Amino acid sequence: MDWERNAALKDLRALRPLVHCVTNTVTINDVANILLACGASPVMAMDVREMEDFVSLAQAVLVNIGTLDETVERAAEAALACAARLARPVVLDPVGVGAARYRTEMVKRWLDTWPVTVIRANASEIRALHEDAATTKGVDAADADAVNAETLPDRIAMAAAVAAKYHCVVAMSGAWDVITDGSQSLVCRRGVPMMSRITGTGCMLSGLTAAFVAARPSQPLQAAYDATEFLCLCGEEAAQKTAAIHGGTATFRNFLLDAVFLA
Amino acid sequence: MDWERNAALKDLRALRPLVHCVTNTVTINDVANILLACGASPVMAMDVREMEDFVSLAQAVLVNIGTLDETVERAAEAALACAARLARPVVLDPVGVGAARYRTEMVKRWLDTWPVTVIRANASEIRALHEDAATTKGVDAADADAVNAETLPDRIAMAAAVAAKYHCVVAMSGAWDVITDGSQSLVCRRGVPMMSRITGTGCMLSGLTAAFVAARPSQPLQAAYDATEFLCLCGEEAAQKTAAIHGGTATFRNFLLDAVFLA
Amino acid sequence: MDWERNAALKDLRALRPLVHCVTNTVTINDVANILLACGASPVMAMDVREMEDFVSLAQAVLVNIGTLDETVERAAEAALACAARLARPVVLDPVGVGAARYRTEMVKRWLDTWPVTVIRANASEIRALHEDAATTKGVDAADADAVNAETLPDRIAMAAAVAAKYHCVVAMSGAWDVITDGSQSLVCRRGVPMMSRITGTGCMLSGLTAAFVAARPSQPLQAAYDATEFLCLCGEEAAQKTAAIHGGTATFRNFLLDAVFLA
Repeated sequence: MDWERNAALKDLRALRPLVHCVTNTVTINDVANILLACGASPVMAMDVREMEDFVSLAQAVLVNIGTLDETVERAAEAALACAARLARPVVLDPVGVGAARYRTEMVKRWLDTWPVTVIRANASEIRALHEDAATTKGVDAADADAVNAETLPDRIAMAAAVAAKYHCVVAMSGAWDVITDGSQSLVCRRGVPMMSRITGTGCMLSGLTAAFVAARPSQPLQAAYDATEFLCLCGEEAAQKTAAIHGGTATFRNFLLDAVFLA
Repeated sequence: MDWERNAALKDLRALRPLVHCVTNTVTINDVANILLACGASPVMAMDVREMEDFVSLAQAVLVNIGTLDETVERAAEAALACAARLARPVVLDPVGVGAARYRTEMVKRWLDTWPVTVIRANASEIRALHEDAATTKGVDAADADAVNAETLPDRIAMAAAVAAKYHCVVAMSGAWDVITDGSQSLVCRRGVPMMSRITGTGCMLSGLTAAFVAARPSQPLQAAYDATEFLCLCGEEAAQKTAAIHGGTATFRNFLLDAVFLA
Repeated sequence: MDWERNAALKDLRALRPLVHCVTNTVTINDVANILLACGASPVMAMDVREMEDFVSLAQAVLVNIGTLDETVERAAEAALACAARLARPVVLDPVGVGAARYRTEMVKRWLDTWPVTVIRANASEIRALHEDAATTKGVDAADADAVNAETLPDRIAMAAAVAAKYHCVVAMSGAWDVITDGSQSLVCRRGVPMMSRITGTGCMLSGLTAAFVAARPSQPLQAAYDATEFLCLCGEEAAQKTAAIHGGTATFRNFLLDAVFLA
């Protein structure tokens, strides 16, 4: 792949960062495999009794609440608290925020309590963190929240407001991706619609983002952008290969992971 | 794919139903991906504190007890109770019923308490619900329960009795599939043996059934039949493609999901 | 595949053993699929209330602590106790032992309490069971623990000491695999580096080992060796096929499972 930000990937591969993941059971295998494919080393551990040990070993922490339950909640809170104490960068993927009140209140409480380096989410989830309104349709972005040429200025303002509120980077994914730290905003208009027809693209991007941030912890805005652009380019390559053999979504998923490994 | 019931799939794709799944960790990724591939939108949420919110958003509910534990049990019961209160169709996949007493008693208690639209299971599991006998070998159907030309009349009677007992549709999968509401019984003799050589075919069919029922909630017998026939045809297509390249079970799984997406 | 130990695989396929798995959520789907591909029948059940029923039905038990939490811990302990009472062979995969103190102490307590037939682990994990030292980097073997021509005698001695201490077979995986019962030690120098670039190769090998041990319970040393050599040969075949089409790690994973099925 011809990617002008390839130096970021090289740094990541030289470091081989350990990324500790508290993540959902739907896509946990995909997240582990994309971390291995990009050159990072994943650990998935959920027990509060060993959170300190694993966070100590890790260069970055991922918290994804897709399949929230009491065990996940306690694990996530322990991971956030340990990461704060040990100064590890944290990527938070607030899956489904806005769709269920419990989830929304919990994530806002977390963001008020512990520092987060990057929030990686879709536009409906960012809106839920911005507005106290809930327009999410399950875990996919609602059509009303789509980011396109017309809505882009408003969406950038929304993401920037959330970034400023929580002193973090917001990486808002969609047809247009917006990555912002509140003052500077980057837009990525790459990727393919097929990426939203498999489960786990967002979760994998959150994992990748944690790996890129681990490699360049002092530049979280650029690292989050790099992760997004890199996965989008891999998605474009995978979509081309899939179309060439008249494949479907399972074939696309395989080519996506292959592209990350082969890049 | 040339499928005479293609209108059912078109309706499903026009509706894009949200299917809320309480399902097992073995095949949760496959279930999410097949729901996306067929045009539905999956949500997997397990926490009792948000069950009402997610069931409210959903057009159908799937309960699959493959990896039962206390969290799953509470989630399933909350989902069944919410679905009853909100009049959402429910597909129940009683994985492993008959193999373990706890599981068998639990499912029977559920069926006595809450309405279920479709029970999707293999012949050993349906037998366990019919007879109080336990002949299941783990989670796969026992050879003694195989449905073939000789045993078909008996198996239809058994499935119909369970359907009548619980006022629901029974979709009993095997080499011959029997779908019955107690009075009318449909038989589908499609599909390929390879479908039982990967994990998750049954779970994926239960997910598909929930999506088809969501699209045509007033016709659960036909919808369950459509889902079964559709997956069988996809399986036949996938098996042909797999054989053409001398592939194995992983290749077959990919082609199966591809076929659902490409149909 | 041309494998001189092919009779072991034939025996396994003739028996179709049920393997009961308490295993981690990251790779649970891969473990189920490799068990089906090799000819075994997997059951994944976690609830202590049904452990006795499932272990009774099974010909072997797998315990893998990758995603340890309180539910897994109780399930694993119930499975180990039932297997001991019912004399079922047990394969233990102590994922991440050495990386977190809680995990290390728990596994040592288990090994002091219940019999285990095979411990299948990487060199860092075996070191943690040997030494009370913790050099594991997350769940992958630390570079310092690599088994090569120079370190082989020392690594064999370490694995043999652990096998003697716990009266079991130790199957220590790496570039060189060491399988030992404390007195006799076998070395397998097959396989490919790609096997460590996907998640789940170790977990899948532990599952395969349980299936091979189920087929030949009186020969656990040979069965563990056979499982290791078999997966390594499948890995070699998969790597060749992957290279031929310029594939990446997802393609490799599919070919690996295919090779197990097609052997």
